[in-house]
Amino acid sequence: MRIGILGGGQLGRMIALAGYPLGTRCTVLDPAADPCAGQVCGHVRGEFDQDFRAMYELAQVSDVVTYEFENVPVESARWLAERVPVFPPPRALEVSQDRLVEKSFFRDLGIPTPPFVAVDSLGDFEAALREIGMPAVLKTRRFGYDGKGQVVIRNRVEADAAWSRLGGRPLILEGFVSFDRELSILAVRSRTGEIVCYPLIENAHRDGILHRSLAPASGTGEELTERAQEHAVHVLTELDYVGVLTIEWFQDGPRLLANEMAPRVHNSGHWTIEGAQTSQFENHVRAICGLPLGSPEAVGWSAMYNFIGSVLPTAEVLSRPAAHLHLYGKSDRPGRKVGHVTLRAGSLDDLAEKLPEWDRAFERRG
Amino acid sequence: MRIGILGGGQLGRMIALAGYPLGTRCTVLDPAADPCAGQVCGHVRGEFDQDFRAMYELAQVSDVVTYEFENVPVESARWLAERVPVFPPPRALEVSQDRLVEKSFFRDLGIPTPPFVAVDSLGDFEAALREIGMPAVLKTRRFGYDGKGQVVIRNRVEADAAWSRLGGRPLILEGFVSFDRELSILAVRSRTGEIVCYPLIENAHRDGILHRSLAPASGTGEELTERAQEHAVHVLTELDYVGVLTIEWFQDGPRLLANEMAPRVHNSGHWTIEGAQTSQFENHVRAICGLPLGSPEAVGWSAMYNFIGSVLPTAEVLSRPAAHLHLYGKSDRPGRKVGHVTLRAGSLDDLAEKLPEWDRAFERRG
Ligand SMILES: Nc1ncnc2c1ncn2[C@@H]1O[C@H](COP(=O)(O)OP(=O)(O)OP(=O)(O)O)[C@@H](O)[C@H]1O
Ligand SMILES: Nc1ncnc2c1ncn2[C@@H]1O[C@H](COP(=O)(O)OP(=O)(O)OP(=O)(O)O)[C@@H](O)[C@H]1O
Repeated sequence: MRIGILGGGQLGRMIALAGYPLGTRCTVLDPAADPCAGQVCGHVRGEFDQDFRAMYELAQVSDVVTYEFENVPVESARWLAERVPVFPPPRALEVSQDRLVEKSFFRDLGIPTPPFVAVDSLGDFEAALREIGMPAVLKTRRFGYDGKGQVVIRNRVEADAAWSRLGGRPLILEGFVSFDRELSILAVRSRTGEIVCYPLIENAHRDGILHRSLAPASGTGEELTERAQEHAVHVLTELDYVGVLTIEWFQDGPRLLANEMAPRVHNSGHWTIEGAQTSQFENHVRAICGLPLGSPEAVGWSAMYNFIGSVLPTAEVLSRPAAHLHLYGKSDRPGRKVGHVTLRAGSLDDLAEKLPEWDRAFERRG
Repeated sequence: MRIGILGGGQLGRMIALAGYPLGTRCTVLDPAADPCAGQVCGHVRGEFDQDFRAMYELAQVSDVVTYEFENVPVESARWLAERVPVFPPPRALEVSQDRLVEKSFFRDLGIPTPPFVAVDSLGDFEAALREIGMPAVLKTRRFGYDGKGQVVIRNRVEADAAWSRLGGRPLILEGFVSFDRELSILAVRSRTGEIVCYPLIENAHRDGILHRSLAPASGTGEELTERAQEHAVHVLTELDYVGVLTIEWFQDGPRLLANEMAPRVHNSGHWTIEGAQTSQFENHVRAICGLPLGSPEAVGWSAMYNFIGSVLPTAEVLSRPAAHLHLYGKSDRPGRKVGHVTLRAGSLDDLAEKLPEWDRAFERRG
């Protein structure tokens, strides 16, 4: 099978690498001259928007097309879908690209979310503040990522500041959730409708960027895991979804509130390369190629740390027993995800014992 | 680091794939137009022998050079070693290319082998038969692989037949060992002299080709494992070796007899991709790049089956829970290694329970 991927970043790169042992070969579409996925597979240079020559070229070398980021224009995905199967379905893109559509979609499925109201004018904003109360979070409906395009509002002064920064664009006001922690779940549905769910993952962010994931999340209890999995299955089925889907949650005591979904493999699932029977990347490939899915079962306990901006010296990372390094072949740049490292331990105690030292070593850099 | 690899088969392919997450990029030298490793990394087309243009080109794009099969001409490795570091050292190639040199090398290090005698003439042959007795095995000294170039001799008639088939070339006559089973061990030494050893592996052959490996081999006891590891460390140190080294053994009761060594990653080590903390491919890359080695510890128990000649339908293989498929991107051909599959289980009992069914499913094909 030949797989086309919209986007040539680290996610595309890891999909391509996971695909080779299954006999697939990938080509990424990316505007960059040397996208990091292009180092390990084919690359068609082109834009995601209106670049029909490039999209045609991708379709020509692909038996199936997927994407590695959710801001691909839905029209491009639909245009491609007329020529070659595109998974996940463009409808999933559409839902996840707009926070209002996304949260309404969750609500319609009975999946709890933080309270939210659409804000299209100053009048809406004032009404929303009264309805939701403070603290609240004002967010742009579209193109937010890594915490960009959102402001926390604790008082009247911050409310005015938030409006002057974001006002004028389509917005959403959400109730601020004083969550205990953030969790995510990855679920996979194949072309034949088979579904598997990975265990819940616990995520810690720094400056709006994922810093560390622990998996399986400890202390979730079966009930919480089952509930998250049921919700994920519900979303997959409703969208006639194919591929890996990620849902991010706020845990507030016994409550699970859906924050957002990503119709793709996800940074919080990188631990699955070593820490699960089958990695998210392999299961994504299996799913979109119509192959049976692999077991999502965890193998031991894992901690994944992102390298942001720059990487620790390779030798220093690898000198830690059980360190699994993944470099993305990118140059350093502040705020850029350039690699990650996964520590897998045989027991939760063993992992817990090593974490403080790893936490110190894998501080956010540059 | 840029790694050059002499040979572009599945071993080179898996070295290249293991190298990407560590930030390395590989180029293979191979005479074929489309060697299977060339699908996943760079490819310089050329011969291994006397093709100085191709070797020069490889050296130009490599910070370090290694090889994936042991019949690379030693002169080529030496020529390259004048231009760029070559690991494992060419001396290891030299030793492993000639069964007489190899077995003498083992003997000099105090490593037990089957009894053996050099045979260069009919006179030698008759004397050797008297010394070794029957049954015995007559082998060519050079270029044997997958059981080719050797004949078992049980009686006078077979002795004459063996001589008329192989006589005239440099030969070796070995005592036939009625071994209990065949084992192998993989050991790795890095550029800084660090050494790690994988556990013993149990190997079963069909028609002279590896069919199934089980790891860690069960029922070996600590003493046997330690002895095999000590011998391996001895060889590594003696050769000032860098990279993965494989030694194949006959187990005869409590005795361990060295059959041969391969100065490279090895088919019997493929289970390490899923079944060990660090795969043989990653540790080979780490070793030759001067990086710290990863833990060779087993993760659960694994069984690896080769696909010879052709592959079972992908969907059929992947429908088995915990099946890890590795296709090499080769076309089918009788006797050709075209892929493998690894089953990893959490306990030895669990593995033992699944084996009979897997044995039936992964019979040798084509
Ligand atoms: N309603 C809320 N209450 C409390 N904290 C929130 C809320 N919404 C967002 N946050 C915080 O801000 C972070 C980023 O929010 P969100 O995921 O909506 O933004 P994003 O820009 O899409 O980020 P990502 O790159 O993770 O998709 C969350 O991980 C959470 O820590
Ligand atoms: N001295 C011996 N006594 C009994 N069996 C032997 C002996 N030598 C070889 N054999 C059998 O023949 C097989 C192949 O032998 P050997 O490994 O020497 O050949 P090869 O052609 O180099 O194979 P390979 O491709 O595994 O390197 C062994 O795995 C073993 O089963």
